[in-house]
Amino acid sequence: MKSFPKKIAIIGLGLIGGSIALGLKQHFGTKICILGNCHTLSRSKKAKKEGIIDEIFDINKPDNGIKFYIIATPILQVPNILSNLALQIKTGVVIMDVGSTKEFIIHSAKKILLPNITFIASHPMAGSEMSGFENANPNLFRNKPWIVCTKKHHLITELTEILGAEMILMDAKIHDEYISWASHLNLVSASILTNTIGRQKNWTEIAKIASTGFRDTTRLASSNVEMKKDIIITNKENVIVSLIKFQKEIELFINMLKSNDSSQIASYLSNAKTIRDNWIDKY
Amino acid sequence: MKSFPKKIAIIGLGLIGGSIALGLKQHFGTKICILGNCHTLSRSKKAKKEGIIDEIFDINKPDNGIKFYIIATPILQVPNILSNLALQIKTGVVIMDVGSTKEFIIHSAKKILLPNITFIASHPMAGSEMSGFENANPNLFRNKPWIVCTKKHHLITELTEILGAEMILMDAKIHDEYISWASHLNLVSASILTNTIGRQKNWTEIAKIASTGFRDTTRLASSNVEMKKDIIITNKENVIVSLIKFQKEIELFINMLKSNDSSQIASYLSNAKTIRDNWIDKY
Repeated sequence: MKSFPKKIAIIGLGLIGGSIALGLKQHFGTKICILGNCHTLSRSKKAKKEGIIDEIFDINKPDNGIKFYIIATPILQVPNILSNLALQIKTGVVIMDVGSTKEFIIHSAKKILLPNITFIASHPMAGSEMSGFENANPNLFRNKPWIVCTKKHHLITELTEILGAEMILMDAKIHDEYISWASHLNLVSASILTNTIGRQKNWTEIAKIASTGFRDTTRLASSNVEMKKDIIITNKENVIVSLIKFQKEIELFINMLKSNDSSQIASYLSNAKTIRDNWIDKY
Repeated sequence: MKSFPKKIAIIGLGLIGGSIALGLKQHFGTKICILGNCHTLSRSKKAKKEGIIDEIFDINKPDNGIKFYIIATPILQVPNILSNLALQIKTGVVIMDVGSTKEFIIHSAKKILLPNITFIASHPMAGSEMSGFENANPNLFRNKPWIVCTKKHHLITELTEILGAEMILMDAKIHDEYISWASHLNLVSASILTNTIGRQKNWTEIAKIASTGFRDTTRLASSNVEMKKDIIITNKENVIVSLIKFQKEIELFINMLKSNDSSQIASYLSNAKTIRDNWIDKY
């Protein structure tokens, strides 16, 4: 790990940015200097006070010592940040993002950054319904996939090793399609399901008897709204395809119920159980 | 708790039946004798060996010492069990069930049992994707609602006190409607979502990058198939209504995405977050 920069900046100290900071601190201790910032100065100050970062990063003040920038904000803020960074950084600097949609970001980076700047488009597959650096955890990424949609680069290899994540190289277009099934459909269906149930006229009564099933199926509805909105908007086409497929599956199941075919219903539920149980066993 | 019977039978030692047994054992120790059985003799023997029950219960051998029967099997097996019990039990005996649909079971009990037998229709709101007495937990019901759809009876009051659950009295028809939103819709949507994703042609690749979001949103797809099938079939009308409402909400969200109205999308996601966050805070 000799080559890992001793001074880095993390722009956006939410759950992901904060957890990267803590993971690097846990590994390097005082041998690394982490600059960072949040969307408000008071949040940035709190992050420094709580030891998430060493110094507050000011995007308008060039710092030639920083060799590695990690952008961990909601996706639609990334182009602006890249434009700001482009004004001050020099050859040899590496910029990485961790957003959940990759084609949009790679496209933005190509338009904004000069070719002498290396851009790493990455996506750690870890999350929680908790947001903010207050919930950051240095082990958040351990044994989780960390997808990279740009060319192999030693910095992401080292970072994923340090954080215990498993690096997976993937084409950005394929990433965005696969991730709409693996992640974005779950993200939106949790919110849609919550609104479906919570908008019932007797919700106050229903809420009293809702239990662990409701809690887990809707968990992602509690995650950061800005983050989710940007993900969904930048991967809109794929998300719509997955939602339409989901609607068709619901239609199929309603018809099974209407025809009262209990063996067909059992085999449908069995199929879902096998898919999930096998996934749990393997991953 | 002087009045709690010293000899009871639990028919069906899955997660719920097994957890009731362990909770009673934890409270009464050797002062209670619990008979019980599973769907196979070898499972019943294993439950006895593992200390879940004291003796194996044989439904064909009358035992006048048993004053309280708890039926904890999948719902569609309950009528047959009631018919078998009706042949041998005497005045003063209490039978209780713990199924997730109540109108069907109350209707069955009224048809099958003589009026000198007390029937308690109840529904503990606790569960897990794990099934079988191997996953039983004496604290499964602690601080969870336990709905009762028949008249107040001291045995269910005592039982819920012992297990730390919160008893809620509710009309059976209202229960079945509310529970389709609070629980059954979550149960089926987890399975439908799992099949939607797992039937994608690239599932093998998608599976590798699925993470905690997929894990939690689909958790209930791993729960017991027989139990789920019986719940859905016996509460079919309400489940269909909730699924159609869910489809309409998905339609609404797809249209929001198509119209690219980012503030509307944000407010939709915010609404879901508020509903769930408030629920988490309160319950």
